[in-house]
Amino acid sequence: MAVYTEVTDEELAAFVAAYDIGGVLSLKGIAEGVENSNYLLHTDAGYFILTLYEKRVEEADLPFFLGLMEHLSARGITCPLPVKNRAGAALGRLAGRPAVIVTFLEGMWVRRPDARQCGMVGEALGRLHVAGSDFAGRRANALSVQGWPPLLHAVEGRADEITAGLGELVAQELAHLERVWPRGLPEGVIHADLFPDNVFFLSGQLSGLIDFYFACTDAFAYDLAICLNAWCFEADASFNITKGMALLDGYERVRVLRDEEVAALPTLARGAALRFLLTRTVDWLNRAPGALVKPKDPMEYVKKLRFHQRVEQARDYGLNR
Amino acid sequence: MAVYTEVTDEELAAFVAAYDIGGVLSLKGIAEGVENSNYLLHTDAGYFILTLYEKRVEEADLPFFLGLMEHLSARGITCPLPVKNRAGAALGRLAGRPAVIVTFLEGMWVRRPDARQCGMVGEALGRLHVAGSDFAGRRANALSVQGWPPLLHAVEGRADEITAGLGELVAQELAHLERVWPRGLPEGVIHADLFPDNVFFLSGQLSGLIDFYFACTDAFAYDLAICLNAWCFEADASFNITKGMALLDGYERVRVLRDEEVAALPTLARGAALRFLLTRTVDWLNRAPGALVKPKDPMEYVKKLRFHQRVEQARDYGLNR
Repeated sequence: MAVYTEVTDEELAAFVAAYDIGGVLSLKGIAEGVENSNYLLHTDAGYFILTLYEKRVEEADLPFFLGLMEHLSARGITCPLPVKNRAGAALGRLAGRPAVIVTFLEGMWVRRPDARQCGMVGEALGRLHVAGSDFAGRRANALSVQGWPPLLHAVEGRADEITAGLGELVAQELAHLERVWPRGLPEGVIHADLFPDNVFFLSGQLSGLIDFYFACTDAFAYDLAICLNAWCFEADASFNITKGMALLDGYERVRVLRDEEVAALPTLARGAALRFLLTRTVDWLNRAPGALVKPKDPMEYVKKLRFHQRVEQARDYGLNR
Repeated sequence: MAVYTEVTDEELAAFVAAYDIGGVLSLKGIAEGVENSNYLLHTDAGYFILTLYEKRVEEADLPFFLGLMEHLSARGITCPLPVKNRAGAALGRLAGRPAVIVTFLEGMWVRRPDARQCGMVGEALGRLHVAGSDFAGRRANALSVQGWPPLLHAVEGRADEITAGLGELVAQELAHLERVWPRGLPEGVIHADLFPDNVFFLSGQLSGLIDFYFACTDAFAYDLAICLNAWCFEADASFNITKGMALLDGYERVRVLRDEEVAALPTLARGAALRFLLTRTVDWLNRAPGALVKPKDPMEYVKKLRFHQRVEQARDYGLNR
């Protein structure tokens, strides 16, 4: 939940006047997204999301993110579409911050996804990978294997405050993954953060994908490994193979995995677990006591990582071959 | 900003199914209100605010608040109107909390109100007092003079952490006000918290009043004194008599103050300043370090109180007689 930057009515009216969307009727700060300030904006032309980019998003990356949303949208992926002002620009400035207006997506994210929803997410991820394959933009994944050592160094001495042995666990896992991390897998644009709160459903159907601010160029199968982590475990950290099967089947209805991707899946799943374990550990150790934004529990990813360490083949995730 | 209680899609669908407002299209937590969890709810029937009442609101008071909004709405005051479900009930339960759906009001609150807007607020306050005069409900003002000693005791020892002498200032002021607090003034329903963030404007006109969760039965002129504090000071804590004049004129266009109310206004303004100084001091001393919700600065009300202590008559606020 996040509204970090306040917008005055005068500033907003001046900003919106540059667009063909009528006058402002209301603006409500919304409690979503931890990286940016998000507002629900109602104008004569309808409802929009107004996003002000805070410091954690690199301004130089914004053309990649906005261009990607336009590209995917034009290829039938339901995602927020940046609205251009009369000068043809999607990116503006408001209250001293880079700012965009994007279209509003209906739907709600599901707190307890079922196997059917996992299947729809797998399919949507496949469509996203295919639709993004001719996108010209490139952005390195700052949170892949070469980005993990700085995170490890940031927490190494204090990780054991969370649970005894955590520092050792992540250090050993990182050393292992650096040795075996797969190279040369099919790659392209990946979402890299397709958790349940970034997928909307409406009337039982997947109605849209949001939050492309971790999107980057990386292995498609790594994105799938992130989704296995995010969608297919139960609250008690047990892996639900029915959900795994549904997710992988859904994905392969759109894009069939190559043999080398299948072989790499357990390693990629360990890497994805380590990536979220590391960032959650950083956030946990740096949390403000009593802050309203409760950092997510790193222990969830300790358990997921331990599960993946015992996995030998993609079949253990429910892959049908 | 506040979303304390999470609502799942299943719980929400079941809750909304009891109303004649169609199916759920989206739900966004909104960063407004510090007492309750507020969501913007979109259904087939339009946009609504869904409020879940958190611990700081007494459940026994909810019929008063909801009944008041219905009463005022029926008399032409633009305020949120509780929506009734098919069983005729406005108050329900969701995610273990009392919950209501109210109508959505367009408009934005103004960060820097001008004299014209102060005039419109004065007039709206007068209309609210007149419209509420035949409301049957009663609720004592827990934050009037008899409610201040417990707040003072809660902060007395630590108030000087904020500024040297603050404990002494509030103790002396309370002792003074307990001696001279006016009794027997015309009373009825007051809003008791009509700050700029609770008043919406649209296209230059006042478009609605929100947040009736401090409303109570008390002296009308005390409500006006709260508004003098909330609307007529500049950022440097200087009193803007043009704004005071506009506010008082606006009010008297609807309801003329009696002589005893005019005479009491400086004392009521001191009381209003002390009330917000006390609650802000409590919130400040109990703030969570690093919390996203920044408590409001008590010093603003130290300065306002010192101004009122030098005021001798209502004319000093801009009253035209």
